[in-house]
Amino acid sequence: MDMNSNLPQDIVRAIKSVVGDGPLALHEPRFNGNEWVYLKECLDSTFVSSVGKFVDRFEDDLANFTGAKSAVAVVNGTAALHVALRLAGVEAGDEVLLPALTFIATANAVAYCQATPHFVDSAERSLGMDSVSLREYLSTFTEICNGHCVNRKTGRIIRAMVPMHTFGHPVDISALLAIAHDFHLQLIEDAAESLGSTVGGQHTGTFGLMGTLSFNGNKTITAGGGGAILTNDVELGKRAKHITTTAKLPHRWNFVHDEVGFNYRLPNLNAALGCAQLEQLPGFLRDKRCLFGQYQAAFANVAGVHLVAEPTGSSSNYWLQTLLLDAAHAGQRDAVLAATNDSGLMTRPIWALMNRLPMYANSPSAPLPVAESLEQRVINIPSSSGLGTVAP
Amino acid sequence: MDMNSNLPQDIVRAIKSVVGDGPLALHEPRFNGNEWVYLKECLDSTFVSSVGKFVDRFEDDLANFTGAKSAVAVVNGTAALHVALRLAGVEAGDEVLLPALTFIATANAVAYCQATPHFVDSAERSLGMDSVSLREYLSTFTEICNGHCVNRKTGRIIRAMVPMHTFGHPVDISALLAIAHDFHLQLIEDAAESLGSTVGGQHTGTFGLMGTLSFNGNKTITAGGGGAILTNDVELGKRAKHITTTAKLPHRWNFVHDEVGFNYRLPNLNAALGCAQLEQLPGFLRDKRCLFGQYQAAFANVAGVHLVAEPTGSSSNYWLQTLLLDAAHAGQRDAVLAATNDSGLMTRPIWALMNRLPMYANSPSAPLPVAESLEQRVINIPSSSGLGTVAP
Repeated sequence: MDMNSNLPQDIVRAIKSVVGDGPLALHEPRFNGNEWVYLKECLDSTFVSSVGKFVDRFEDDLANFTGAKSAVAVVNGTAALHVALRLAGVEAGDEVLLPALTFIATANAVAYCQATPHFVDSAERSLGMDSVSLREYLSTFTEICNGHCVNRKTGRIIRAMVPMHTFGHPVDISALLAIAHDFHLQLIEDAAESLGSTVGGQHTGTFGLMGTLSFNGNKTITAGGGGAILTNDVELGKRAKHITTTAKLPHRWNFVHDEVGFNYRLPNLNAALGCAQLEQLPGFLRDKRCLFGQYQAAFANVAGVHLVAEPTGSSSNYWLQTLLLDAAHAGQRDAVLAATNDSGLMTRPIWALMNRLPMYANSPSAPLPVAESLEQRVINIPSSSGLGTVAP
Repeated sequence: MDMNSNLPQDIVRAIKSVVGDGPLALHEPRFNGNEWVYLKECLDSTFVSSVGKFVDRFEDDLANFTGAKSAVAVVNGTAALHVALRLAGVEAGDEVLLPALTFIATANAVAYCQATPHFVDSAERSLGMDSVSLREYLSTFTEICNGHCVNRKTGRIIRAMVPMHTFGHPVDISALLAIAHDFHLQLIEDAAESLGSTVGGQHTGTFGLMGTLSFNGNKTITAGGGGAILTNDVELGKRAKHITTTAKLPHRWNFVHDEVGFNYRLPNLNAALGCAQLEQLPGFLRDKRCLFGQYQAAFANVAGVHLVAEPTGSSSNYWLQTLLLDAAHAGQRDAVLAATNDSGLMTRPIWALMNRLPMYANSPSAPLPVAESLEQRVINIPSSSGLGTVAP
């Protein structure tokens, strides 16, 4: 008898022992706070669009919560990344290092700058950019010319690196910052998934030159859409605000814009929702951590799979709860996805590696042994913060 | 005594005779319909983000209202233009014809495609792209090579033209369509300002290959932010939806994207507001037309200035009511702006010509005598639809 044949059903049982029979979405928002009040206030003010007090407040609240000196609210996380890369000096013909194992937005933002993504491997511990193999790779394949890191093979400047805090688990940021320093790279953190996650008490997204957040509907908090740029460089924050608001120069009535800017400002309506959600974030984080503990207990006796825990020295927001199949069971990933989804529990695999997608198939890439393994073994399971308050 | 010295105060008096003493904004939204009901329904559903029934409904409602076969809702009018230009085949190194007298988004969308705006003149009658001088200009400065319109001077392909319906007044669309046909150009209508405006009973934005709408807070109706792409080519509509939703291929759980797409989908929260607003559009249009009539009567006896009326054969939404100073009084524009704003009536000039802005100063341009004259003579006055219901 094949011991493995029961793994999909074992996983279904373990999940249901925590969250009940479902049906359950992967991640649903919760609106138990001032959402109504603020949306109504916003409508009554008639300031629903790109100017309004909730946009300013949302930025202040985000800066306070994350400890960033400056937060600039934009329409979504993709726009935040695009602008951060532009402001980091990423230009047409540059290369930008990013994990092959990330959401499409990270790579697309590079493409919007007419730059080329250069994919690197991930670490199993964090699911994010691996600092050890990265340093070795850069030492071998790049050289510093005129203060720039140059890819020996393509001759192009590698301008920046964009580690992403996968599912809320922080990357090994201090080692990556050291690499950025040693190889003359700008470091932009894609913190779209890690609002509330910290390393040594410092919020993700505040370590590099800039960090970016997302408030899409599936995130820990949502503004309908929405994103933000975090930075500790106040001048850079002002630049970010300028180019996300069409680069218009302030004037009593004249319409003069001084560079090619973007219409990326978050509407006040969305910011109103974001403000109400942000007030509840500490509670959501407690509930999500509680859910992790419940899942961890439920999976303690399920052989062949374990729950991904926050890396040592960091605190994860546990945005998406993540199962990691043992290597021997990687072949059962799709059977697990089918069994769970068939039984009303929404689950999903991690993203296809970026270098497998047709538009990035010819982009440069480091060897990706860990990312390729993780791609076959990661499964996200129902993770809504509301589930963490349900007794098992 | 200088007869002209009273023009600013004459204008203040004429405006106040219609709308009262103010203070008044240039254009405020009105939320007297189902805004609150739909926003609550949206929150209660928890579908506030990029998936939800209001997004689908908003698209259906827009298609019904405009008569377009397909409407795709996006985050704003700039995003709509960007995608429309991409889908029209605008590529890096191309040129795109647009009026020098337009909002910055028209030019920026061209720049996002790494193409170059090529500015052309406007007609005093419509305030939009002038078909007469355009045909003459193209006949002289371009040639058709391999089925493409080529700028003789730069050698670049002129791929498309983007007329914009200024302040809601339709351009001379049939003459422009004939030019597009004769010179092998794609025609994209920037209908950001002209929701509700028609030519011969057909809605603006539905004549060219694609048209784009905006629902920014200052527009006739608002979704907080928001925009849409209109097209009568259903396949093109599907393409627009695909690349505005990250080009993800439908699958039960896999994340595979087949091209560089955009995160441009309108959130359901904003669509809920848009649906409620669209229901009220016919009433808004009546009120705005009524306001035009009241202003026209009030300005009938003010020498040196007149109100811009819809071009013959078309129906304007009268988004922004527009004063046009006689050429002899162009020098008084800033005095009028100061007098009106100082007395609590928000007014503004038209945009600075695009070719005056630093990032577009080196773009190719036709002679712009009419646009240069209009730039000095146009003044928008308080135009909220709510003002049209106030007795003078």
